[in-house]
Amino acid sequence: MIVELISVGTEILLGNIVNTNAAYLAEQCAGLGLSCYYQSVVGDNVVRLRAALCTALERSDIVILSGGLGPTTDDLTKETTADVLKMSLVMDPHSLERVESYFQKMGTQMTENNKKQALVPQGAIVIDNDNGTAPGLILEKNGKRVILLPGPPNELRPMFEERIRPYLAKLDGGTLYTRTVKICGMGESKAASMIQDLIDRQTNPTVAPYAKPGEVHLRVTARCADEREGEKMVKPLVKELKTRFGMHIYTTDPKVTLERAVVELLLANHLTVSTVESCTGGLLAARLINVPGVSEVFKSGYVTYSNKAKRRVLGVKKGTLHKNGAVSAQVAEEMAAKAALVTKSDVTVSVTGLAGPDGGTPEKPVGLVYIGCCVCKKTTVKEYRFNGGREKIRESAVSAALTLMRQCILEYYSEVTFRK
Amino acid sequence: MIVELISVGTEILLGNIVNTNAAYLAEQCAGLGLSCYYQSVVGDNVVRLRAALCTALERSDIVILSGGLGPTTDDLTKETTADVLKMSLVMDPHSLERVESYFQKMGTQMTENNKKQALVPQGAIVIDNDNGTAPGLILEKNGKRVILLPGPPNELRPMFEERIRPYLAKLDGGTLYTRTVKICGMGESKAASMIQDLIDRQTNPTVAPYAKPGEVHLRVTARCADEREGEKMVKPLVKELKTRFGMHIYTTDPKVTLERAVVELLLANHLTVSTVESCTGGLLAARLINVPGVSEVFKSGYVTYSNKAKRRVLGVKKGTLHKNGAVSAQVAEEMAAKAALVTKSDVTVSVTGLAGPDGGTPEKPVGLVYIGCCVCKKTTVKEYRFNGGREKIRESAVSAALTLMRQCILEYYSEVTFRK
Repeated sequence: MIVELISVGTEILLGNIVNTNAAYLAEQCAGLGLSCYYQSVVGDNVVRLRAALCTALERSDIVILSGGLGPTTDDLTKETTADVLKMSLVMDPHSLERVESYFQKMGTQMTENNKKQALVPQGAIVIDNDNGTAPGLILEKNGKRVILLPGPPNELRPMFEERIRPYLAKLDGGTLYTRTVKICGMGESKAASMIQDLIDRQTNPTVAPYAKPGEVHLRVTARCADEREGEKMVKPLVKELKTRFGMHIYTTDPKVTLERAVVELLLANHLTVSTVESCTGGLLAARLINVPGVSEVFKSGYVTYSNKAKRRVLGVKKGTLHKNGAVSAQVAEEMAAKAALVTKSDVTVSVTGLAGPDGGTPEKPVGLVYIGCCVCKKTTVKEYRFNGGREKIRESAVSAALTLMRQCILEYYSEVTFRK
Repeated sequence: MIVELISVGTEILLGNIVNTNAAYLAEQCAGLGLSCYYQSVVGDNVVRLRAALCTALERSDIVILSGGLGPTTDDLTKETTADVLKMSLVMDPHSLERVESYFQKMGTQMTENNKKQALVPQGAIVIDNDNGTAPGLILEKNGKRVILLPGPPNELRPMFEERIRPYLAKLDGGTLYTRTVKICGMGESKAASMIQDLIDRQTNPTVAPYAKPGEVHLRVTARCADEREGEKMVKPLVKELKTRFGMHIYTTDPKVTLERAVVELLLANHLTVSTVESCTGGLLAARLINVPGVSEVFKSGYVTYSNKAKRRVLGVKKGTLHKNGAVSAQVAEEMAAKAALVTKSDVTVSVTGLAGPDGGTPEKPVGLVYIGCCVCKKTTVKEYRFNGGREKIRESAVSAALTLMRQCILEYYSEVTFRK
């Protein structure tokens, strides 16, 4: 089946935002085995949106539109689509109630224009929006399928994941069964080269590497009759990947993120954790705290950005800072070790580095980061050189810190077990 | 003049890469006053590329294609375009020399297929590529202009900047002038309803609201002869927006983010700041630390997620926690006030809330957040009820905290001035 993506929004046409929705949807559709030959972008304009939709309906089986479902007069996607498909708009009481309760929960007055979001084309499958007000819609007419999704990625993605993906997977008779093998501490090209022989001779199931910040996901996909058959089909390939990547694999569960894998490792071993951050400025703590249930293991987080804070809060020695500079292996080590004393935590992680844009020198360039990890009094420090701008460097440092934590904890326990 | 963008590449259709070129080119074209009504993406496929190009040439004056200029058999953009425009390909000796010397410089053997990159449509304006091998091309035929650019952003951007931009700027005389009025502490629908009358009767300049997480941006755009005229044209409308939105406006400078506005306010008033976070887990500190130069004002950040950490690190009273619960106005107030004592900072901000997914009760539902801000010993606490998942709630809380900090600092100084 052929799918086509239309992104609606003048802000994309003007280049004010990057069209990450298209990349997300394209990747998802490819994963579902749908062929995508065209993507297009149109502004909030009835005539041109109409033209784009008509063209798409001529050449594709499924058209996914994103954006333009909001409350303002600019938002025209639903109205235009209903008009093209000759479906009339009716008020959906369930959606209206959800929009109203959204505002009630926020404690703000709902303006009249918000009611428009509860209008749906008659006969549409309405998809509740758990992260915003505009519901998603699936329209089936004349053998074609049109799917309307809200523009904000934090609304579009969960909606696709939970409702649209299963809907699309069922269309082709068969289904797709996917297992994702998630890898940390290794770059994409290295990982890809390690499975090139598998890729070259693959038919069904297939394996494909996807680069994520600080990680690589190997997606194993089988086209199959049902989930049970799929599970059976992917099993030998997943086993082969486990042999090849060993300790680098932190999960094969799609819901488990790297931070969750780390938190689960802490929980399983009854270890408490604290963080001390300089250049990442709280991002590492924030990622750990994004894991529900982390409160059982997370003791405290410190953001010690200045030298003064490193000394006052943690007791890092003036001499260590003076002799080696704040961005050094010695300071990373002392930050982690002192934090263990101050917080009485089993595991402490420290990050100090140059995120830029200024402050780099030939010896200590922007992107140089030291990460320290102290597990039950044993401290490991690693040096990293990251590329990219300030945000990318900080994001890479957070992933590296999680990877190092995982590695240090595993090594500690393998040694303990070995000694026994 | 109307411009249209076609991005060529199967990797974009598959969602393997995000189409940042389109955003870049769209923004550049908008800045040049060119109207862009359509963007599209096609794979490395002659038939579909041909169709997309023919459609674009029918409805636009200028078509910019990016990607598919490389040496492999997959790269078909130049061949297909020459065919559509009925121009024959000839070997360009200058380009061939550049390709050859590129390989010489790299110290690698040039494979035969690389010669293909020096083939150009007869009569084309050839644009040297200083960062790669495939030259860019400008083709003028039958009153239409087709511009071909290489796909890698580090080749495309400098080429556009140095050669294409000046070429396009000369075509049309006019330009677009844009000012963005950034607002915090107010939702999109409220902001939109406050300017509906302006939107309804607008011609030139125009104003349009854009929702950003925790903010609304009002973009004022004038179509004008030059920057100077544009500035004059938007001035009355920007002034009107300032009257309507008052203190809610935190900047009219496109480069200033909310966190930067807050940091600048701290710098201007020689105020130091520290953060104490529970549910946001370090995200607030991380956003502040994303502002270069923050080290002058940022003292330290604490992530006190558990009750124990709130007591041990900050000295929040056991009784306060016990009586009101960790998610309460009283605890937010005490966190901010105690942090001011512990860190000796002029401004402290505390965040405590329920980010979910679990732990909500009818009285204290998921999304309930209290934010405290202490400015020179005066503490303000506000209650918020955010929607969405864990990540969205935390992101909303961070924006609200920045907004509250700004408000409290401004109020403090307006009172100080008033008392004088």
